[in-house]
Formats: sequence, structure tokens, C-alpha cells
Amino acid sequence: MDEFALIRMLNRSRSTVVSDHPESGVSVGIGDDAAVLRPTGGKELVVSCDTMVESVHFKPETMTYEDIGYKAMASSLSDIAAMGAEPRWALVALAAPRSSSPERLRELYDGLYACAERYGTSIVGGDTASSPSGLTVTVTVIGEAGAGGSLLRSAAKAGDAVFITGPLGGSAAGLRFLLERGGLAGPLEELPERIRPLARAHRLPEPRIDAGRLLARAKPGMCGALNDISDGLASEAWEIAEASGVQVTLYGDRIPVSDELRDYAAASAHDPLDWALYGGEDYELVGTVRQEYAAELASTFERAGKRIWFVGEVDSAVTGSADGKVGVTLVRAGADAGVPVGKRGYNHFA
Amino acid sequence: MDEFALIRMLNRSRSTVVSDHPESGVSVGIGDDAAVLRPTGGKELVVSCDTMVESVHFKPETMTYEDIGYKAMASSLSDIAAMGAEPRWALVALAAPRSSSPERLRELYDGLYACAERYGTSIVGGDTASSPSGLTVTVTVIGEAGAGGSLLRSAAKAGDAVFITGPLGGSAAGLRFLLERGGLAGPLEELPERIRPLARAHRLPEPRIDAGRLLARAKPGMCGALNDISDGLASEAWEIAEASGVQVTLYGDRIPVSDELRDYAAASAHDPLDWALYGGEDYELVGTVRQEYAAELASTFERAGKRIWFVGEVDSAVTGSADGKVGVTLVRAGADAGVPVGKRGYNHFA
Repeated sequence: MDEFALIRMLNRSRSTVVSDHPESGVSVGIGDDAAVLRPTGGKELVVSCDTMVESVHFKPETMTYEDIGYKAMASSLSDIAAMGAEPRWALVALAAPRSSSPERLRELYDGLYACAERYGTSIVGGDTASSPSGLTVTVTVIGEAGAGGSLLRSAAKAGDAVFITGPLGGSAAGLRFLLERGGLAGPLEELPERIRPLARAHRLPEPRIDAGRLLARAKPGMCGALNDISDGLASEAWEIAEASGVQVTLYGDRIPVSDELRDYAAASAHDPLDWALYGGEDYELVGTVRQEYAAELASTFERAGKRIWFVGEVDSAVTGSADGKVGVTLVRAGADAGVPVGKRGYNHFA
Repeated sequence: MDEFALIRMLNRSRSTVVSDHPESGVSVGIGDDAAVLRPTGGKELVVSCDTMVESVHFKPETMTYEDIGYKAMASSLSDIAAMGAEPRWALVALAAPRSSSPERLRELYDGLYACAERYGTSIVGGDTASSPSGLTVTVTVIGEAGAGGSLLRSAAKAGDAVFITGPLGGSAAGLRFLLERGGLAGPLEELPERIRPLARAHRLPEPRIDAGRLLARAKPGMCGALNDISDGLASEAWEIAEASGVQVTLYGDRIPVSDELRDYAAASAHDPLDWALYGGEDYELVGTVRQEYAAELASTFERAGKRIWFVGEVDSAVTGSADGKVGVTLVRAGADAGVPVGKRGYNHFA
């Protein structure tokens, strides 16, 4: 198959494509040198890109090609969620071995389109190239936010409450299960029922677009910093601490984990908190809210049929004081004092 | 070096960065989950991305790391030029082996920044990841154009004159020379003077942003289709023919090649026209103009200190006629009749 035929096969004749809708803002989609888009007057653009590399970010032993596509889109959309913005358009750059089966690549694009459509995002362009070995997928997402309304990492203040938008650690536990089983990438339905949510968290994560939008629309001054949890809570809390110049304290017994995670951790002699802090790829959001608005924010989420969990607090970083340095402290259940939490998370160049 | 330190090293402390200027439209640059940008009211966005893969698109034997970065940015900017748009912002996704020298990666980013700054483009974000083998660089560029003012491939009409913005074939000839010399990626100054423009065309191509803008600002209805020559004139003329449903005729003796190319072709027993038609990576523009405006467009370019070359014409594609099918015909010097030109150019999945 030639390259143009491949691109047509990967992108066209899909049953529903967001860019076909007039309100998608797509004047020219896939097929020319570039796409032409109509941004909304008065909004700012929020743009990010994310790369997934075979055998670094994913292994075909634990994910179908459709999962790989879905997750590549989800992880890029998650960066838009972490700004409180609305995703609108995406570009997909694929490098794949010449020997790739067109059917597998079509499945990869099925996953990319499924996730994009779920979150109202039009795939408007991209590039396909051959690679000497392994797949590399880069997804760029362009979103929109009210002018000045994006939620930054640097906006945490002493006194803020720290919250997260969902249970953590599921993705890391799911990956461990799938690797131990010898790499089972079949339908999720074939997995034991108690494992399914963990495997799903690893294979088909959901970006928290709605939660990010709720936070961005909250009363001005209510929300502080926001980040998505792609590298584990410890690493993300560190990013907020460093960007904001603060100290973040996390309480181990307040960090939610699912019952399935707790059971699997017990069965495999693992500390569930370790997965929550260091596992990564959960794509929940971690943020801070001014203490006086914490209850109001929790109600806002409840009214929207969602929930937030308060897991810590922000203290000032006192320069020169050993206790007050920028960083993250963990107070474990029953402990009187906190211990410093390392920044570790996945490091590509360590 | 850890990943965050690497990103800081690659992106910060640069002497001049476009995004530091207030008119760059950058509210939040590199360092958060996403960048925040202020688009110009009333304009459309023009977006594209391009991937360069080591040993497929480039070999470190013929290019320095700075060249690789420069060319990755240039080839993405070229897609924006091909729409007649103004590039504004770029994101860079890099996958590099863990063993990569930070100095080489810094050189790669020197090249990316040098090209971006030359064309007034702010690098506002990206991603860095490890790869099992070889470099992959994906550059996404976001530009702006007047609403409805982008120049599309599909706008050629029967009777149009076909023009190009500069001599072709230099990049392919330069690559051949560098490969034959056993891969010399040292300073261009060390190469023979008559070869230097060819090696430069391969290593440091320039996107024709100014030419694209001139065309986009021309009298409404003056310009037809536009494309950039990334895959050789034959392939690009085919794209215009297919998108517009027309027949394109090219005249071999009107296609400009440089004196250096002609000399090197003679010395290496090569047909210079072959490089021009099938070599690719020249990044000149090929377009069509309504015949009655051809002279006026040429004057417009001259007044701007530039030039266009008329190399062919557009005929209608008569359905069902063997002579009138969509496609490209070449009339060689001295020949009475044209011969069909194959679409070949680099095909990643053939």
C-alpha cells in the first residue's frame, strides 16, 4: 500500500468524525499541506504534545493497537484537562516500521479517533513516516480557554487544600498484572472481574476534561494550581511545589485507592500507596483550592455527579529552614510526623 | 542528567527567544502542562506537523545535529508557507536514545531555535522521551492566515500557469555528494565552493514563508493552487492535479536548476532534471496563477526582490479521454509531445 492510500485508509470513511460538524471550527481538515481552523473569538489557545514510544511507554504485550491509540490521545488530552481548557483539535504523527500491518495501524487509528470523538476533538492533520524499529506516536492537541483562565502549576499558595479527582494507582497495578500474566492484550472482558478496572486504567485511561472545566469555571480566585497525574502523585506534587515555591504535605490515609487495587495489592504483597504515589499514568488531576472555598468546590463537584478527595495541604517554603524547603512531605497513617517524599516518577534520561 | 534538567538545558538561557517578545502572543510558554497563546482576532489557524526519523529522513553522516534541528523546523514551516500563512508557534517532540550526548541534543535544539527565530516562530512546548534506537523529531507549527485566505492544493483551474519559486534539485544533489564523500558532516566552509550551495540545500533548507505570504496577499482570484516541494516537483504537481481534478503539463527546459547543480550533474553523469523532478526536499513552492495575472504576479515578486519561474500550464481533465486524465505530463526540451510523469517521490510504505 502506498503512503497516500495508507493515510486515506487510516483517516477516512469513519462513521462519525467530529470535524464533519459545522461547530467543529474546521475549515480544511486532513489532505492539504496544513489544516485550517476557526478559533473562537476572545479565547486563548492551550496547546501541548505528547509522545508515546514502543517498549518505553507501551508494550504490545499488554495493550491492543486500539488501546495504544486511545491512550496516546488520552494522555495528550490530559494535558489540556490540566489547564482547565476545552480540547478542540488534534494532529497525529506516526512513525511505524515498514513491516507494520495496515490492519494493526487501522486499529491504532480506531483508538485515536474513539478517544478524540469522546472528548469532542477533531483530528485535523498529522504525518506518517516509516521507522527502523518500533512505533512512535506523537499527538498534539489544541484547546481553548477563556483569556487568562488557564490553571497553572505555579498558582498554589500557603494555606491551600490539596485535592485529587479520583482514586490512584490503578494503572500501575493493571500493568503489573498484565506483565505477570505473560502479557495478555486480549479483550478486557476475558480478564477476572476484580482485575478489569485495573487493566482498563492501564489500557484505556480517561482524561479528566470535565473536572478541569469545572475547576476553570469555578469562582475567580477559588482554585490554585492544577496538574494532571501522568507521573505519579509524588512527582506531580513536586512540580506544583517547585513551580509555586511551596511545601506540599500529603496524608497517606486520605489518598483514595479502589477496592480492586487494595485487594490486588494484598494478594501480591504490594503497598497500594506506593502505586498511588509513584505509579503514574492515572491521568486524574491534582490541584489546590483556597481553604475557605474547599467545601464549596466539593459541593460543586457533587452537584455535577463527581467527587474530589482532599489529600493534603500547602505550606509556605521558608527559605533557609530545613523543614520549610520547597518539596513534598508524606504523613503516613498513624504517624505523628511527615517524611520527605522523593520526586521519582519515570525519568527518561536518568 | 534528569529529564527536567535536560529540558531546561535544551530550552532555556538562549540569547534571543521569540516568545520573550510581547507581540509573540505567548501567555505561558514552556514549563507547564501546556502553553497558552493569544491568537489574533479574526484570523484562522493553519496547523501542520512533520516527523523526521533517523536513518529514514536523515543520517548523522551527512548532517550535524544542528542541521537536523534546523531542517526539522524548516520542513514543518514549509507546510505553513505552502498555505500562504504566517507561522507563529511551534512544539517539538523529541524521542532520543538514553545514550544521547546532552551536547549533541543541545546542538539539535540550537538548530531548531535558529530556524524558528529566523521565521519569527516561538517554540512554546514539546515533549522529550527516550527511544530504543535513533532520533525521532516531530515539529508541530501553528500559523495564522486571513479568514478564507489560505491557498489550497485544490484550487488549480484549466488555463492557469504553473510557477515555482526557485531552482530545484539542489538538496538531492547535495545529499548524493555528501554520501559519496563518505558522509562529511563538518562545517559547510570545508566543502568545495561549487558544492557548498548543494550541501546547504540538503542540510539547511529555507522554507519560503515570504513567497507564500506574497501569494496570499495577491489580488483575490489571482492565485490558484499552492504546494511546497518536499517530495520532488513530479509528486507535488500530481498532488495539485489530483486535488484539483486537472492535468498539469511541465516543460523540462523551463525548470530552473543552479549552475552548481548543472556542473555537478555533468561531472557525475546525472540528469539534472531527474533531481528536480524526483529529488525532493527543496522546499520551494509550486503554484498556479490565472493566466491573465501571470505577468502581474511576476512583477510583484520582482518588486519584492524575488523571482518566480513559469514551468508549465494546467489543462482540464476530460473524463474518459486517454489524453485528458488527471495527471502530470512532461515535455522535454526539443520534444513535440509530452510523456506522462510518474508520481514517484519518497514513499514510506511502498
